[in-house]
Amino acid sequence: MNRSAAADGEAVHRVLDRLADEEPRALERLFRLLAIPSVSTDPAYHQSCLEAAECCAGLLRESGFEARVVPTSGKPMVVGHWGVAPSTKPRRRVLFYGHYDVQPPEPFEEWTTPPFDPHLVDDPVSGKVIVARGASDDKGQMMTFIEAARAWLGEHGTLPLDVSVLIEGEEESGSRSLGPFLAAHGDELQADLALVCDTGQWDAGTPAVTAFLRGLAFSEITVTGPSRDLHSGIYGGPALNPLRVLAEILAALHDGEGRVAIPGFYDGIRAPSSEELTSWRALGFDEAGFLGGVGLSAPAGEKGRTVLEQLWSRPTAEINGIVGGYGGPGTKTVIPSQAIAKLSFRLVPGQDPEKVLSYLHRFVAERLPADAKVSYAHEGGSPAVGFDTSAPSFRAAARALEAEWGKAPAIVGCGGSIPIVESFRSRLGMDSLLIGFALDDDRIHAPNEKYNFTSFAKGMRSWARILAELGAVD
Amino acid sequence: MNRSAAADGEAVHRVLDRLADEEPRALERLFRLLAIPSVSTDPAYHQSCLEAAECCAGLLRESGFEARVVPTSGKPMVVGHWGVAPSTKPRRRVLFYGHYDVQPPEPFEEWTTPPFDPHLVDDPVSGKVIVARGASDDKGQMMTFIEAARAWLGEHGTLPLDVSVLIEGEEESGSRSLGPFLAAHGDELQADLALVCDTGQWDAGTPAVTAFLRGLAFSEITVTGPSRDLHSGIYGGPALNPLRVLAEILAALHDGEGRVAIPGFYDGIRAPSSEELTSWRALGFDEAGFLGGVGLSAPAGEKGRTVLEQLWSRPTAEINGIVGGYGGPGTKTVIPSQAIAKLSFRLVPGQDPEKVLSYLHRFVAERLPADAKVSYAHEGGSPAVGFDTSAPSFRAAARALEAEWGKAPAIVGCGGSIPIVESFRSRLGMDSLLIGFALDDDRIHAPNEKYNFTSFAKGMRSWARILAELGAVD
Repeated sequence: MNRSAAADGEAVHRVLDRLADEEPRALERLFRLLAIPSVSTDPAYHQSCLEAAECCAGLLRESGFEARVVPTSGKPMVVGHWGVAPSTKPRRRVLFYGHYDVQPPEPFEEWTTPPFDPHLVDDPVSGKVIVARGASDDKGQMMTFIEAARAWLGEHGTLPLDVSVLIEGEEESGSRSLGPFLAAHGDELQADLALVCDTGQWDAGTPAVTAFLRGLAFSEITVTGPSRDLHSGIYGGPALNPLRVLAEILAALHDGEGRVAIPGFYDGIRAPSSEELTSWRALGFDEAGFLGGVGLSAPAGEKGRTVLEQLWSRPTAEINGIVGGYGGPGTKTVIPSQAIAKLSFRLVPGQDPEKVLSYLHRFVAERLPADAKVSYAHEGGSPAVGFDTSAPSFRAAARALEAEWGKAPAIVGCGGSIPIVESFRSRLGMDSLLIGFALDDDRIHAPNEKYNFTSFAKGMRSWARILAELGAVD
Repeated sequence: MNRSAAADGEAVHRVLDRLADEEPRALERLFRLLAIPSVSTDPAYHQSCLEAAECCAGLLRESGFEARVVPTSGKPMVVGHWGVAPSTKPRRRVLFYGHYDVQPPEPFEEWTTPPFDPHLVDDPVSGKVIVARGASDDKGQMMTFIEAARAWLGEHGTLPLDVSVLIEGEEESGSRSLGPFLAAHGDELQADLALVCDTGQWDAGTPAVTAFLRGLAFSEITVTGPSRDLHSGIYGGPALNPLRVLAEILAALHDGEGRVAIPGFYDGIRAPSSEELTSWRALGFDEAGFLGGVGLSAPAGEKGRTVLEQLWSRPTAEINGIVGGYGGPGTKTVIPSQAIAKLSFRLVPGQDPEKVLSYLHRFVAERLPADAKVSYAHEGGSPAVGFDTSAPSFRAAARALEAEWGKAPAIVGCGGSIPIVESFRSRLGMDSLLIGFALDDDRIHAPNEKYNFTSFAKGMRSWARILAELGAVD
């Protein structure tokens, strides 16, 4: 089969028919992966991360790829390849990226089914949904691509273009091994384009290609006061309470207008163009529905900006967790020795994660009273990125999505961060095509994460079509 | 033996000799009680609380008391009695109070020996120390009295005055069953005076009688924002973060002068007299040593007041714990649905715990932004109390302590709260004599709690002498 044959209707439709036949078995394969509690941020789950890597390599081999698990100093990488023999004319190659690690499942008690016991559940709004940690982010999304490739190979014994696969296991915990790995294996991973399936649709009926992603910087702040926990009766009054120091620092992070109050934080950021702002308004984003879906009624961010503008073009400072003092049931009149806050910052183009963290350190240092000490841990981040939406591959993918969904994809931003995209650009000189089938109500990073069965099924079909269209690009 | 015989030197000295002989066995008995993890605030330890109550009743019976365990809707009470037969002339009676429950031991990893595996350890500063949760607060302190009574009964078959004992199991968790219990058993517990051994010495060589105690009010605040945990990429910016709301409320609790900023908080409080302030200054309190012992150098309370003044005569607002968002290892970019703060307030005469909590509620309500909801749990408290230091019993106890320690006891305040003292006064019309042998460095409510062996040994001897002196009061 040659390139033009791959893009023609008949070849694609045989693949789509095969995907329809394979649905029950594709779901079984996804459940196999979802049952592995591969939480990368918590060392208690390390063994499960290794198991998930092996599972991914096995799924790739079953599909027809050569695949192996490559150890790193953190969680292993899974690398797979399928290509025509080197003796023929070199072909275009894409690198598909996904991650097998997931967010921690806590709080367990809020899950209606156990997070690592995947269930297909009838949902009154979304129809059949797959419920499990990682169902959407990113195991379900990743499998849409692997299943599409499997169907191409199963049906035609070939793919419309050469495909490599990289699946990492630290996406949810800072991707520390990724830089060294790309540096060491850059030649092997080099491709014309990266495909990333870790983003969302515009809505349940409209696909999307993501052309802009916020960056991320994160830090864990520990404030230490007394050298040990104190009784608040014996010491309360004269003793410094680090929870109070921390609360005062955290309360100062924002001003009365909802802006981040850290000096230097907004330096150098680029505002979206008026064209971009116009196209965002044309999307008709449902602010009330977006907020109302999570029990809120008013945007809490910077005053005077729309929700989409806040999400796609404005940086944030968030408190992701506070730990300090007594957290068990009932009362304990303690003044703790330490208090900890986990912070993260969403970044936009023009902001440098390292600089943002250095501004944070200065901001905190200026607010420390006598006897308070501060230390930092788990710091890292990646800058924001944007893509050229007029590139041939971008247009090819848009055509494939329109064929599957009956309407052109929305060209959107994303408030979240996918550090790999920045790494592919800076280390391998590759742009990425960000196409995913998640929905805003998928509850990723939260209890009862789900992935619509239609996201899974039409996601597989979409990738089958995209591979065909990309194979036809010169 | 008649009353005057009890107070005479020979009878007391035979008891003191017996206590010296009994020391190893008295320590064994204390270790038996310390080995029971009777944490009252955490339901997981409920069975151990029942076990500790039975252990106390057994120790009282071994000593010669009639004793029983009385169920309540919470943790059971232990009640014991020893008195001369009712046919003889009625005698004065004291009610000794202690508590068998202890504070939670967390964080476990900071203990050098397991919290419920008591050890006698050589300490470079304090000599031999008993290390365990409850070693000082209050099992060790309580046993000084029970052992003194046991020695009197063992040596003379009688006590210098009638003695009842009440040991509760909810002192560390709000004493919820105590009010109903005193209401139901007031006749049985009625006495001329309560003896409470839950306070400290002035220093390792100077005993103390506590004449003033701060009160307590406590509350757990839950702020709810979104209806579920959110991904900070997808929602960060427009979504309300309850941790930020909570931090802003907590940061506003104090003004720049270290004063509590809740309107109404200071209304009606009585300042100490100039005589009291003078006598406190005469104690020569070592501010630098007190703070330096816990790694601090500067008093962090209200500006312009001494440490003793802050501890004994000024109310506080403390954050005892914050829980919200991700608290595990590493990073999780979540916006949590809820954030919780555990607060407590130390109170001085003139403050009403219920009013203080109502002022807090108003303060919080005024600071809640749109979409934030608040709820309260685990609320309670008790007012501050002070005693007449010229009463005959007070003077008798002071004489006994001077005989044992070679110097007059310091008459002190206490920054902590012992709600039972207020209950004895308001419900049974009884004053209390607050004498304890704890030291500031006992690490109560903290890891590696200890009780000096000399506190234990001289505490037993002190009570033996106090019983004699109180028996001689008309």
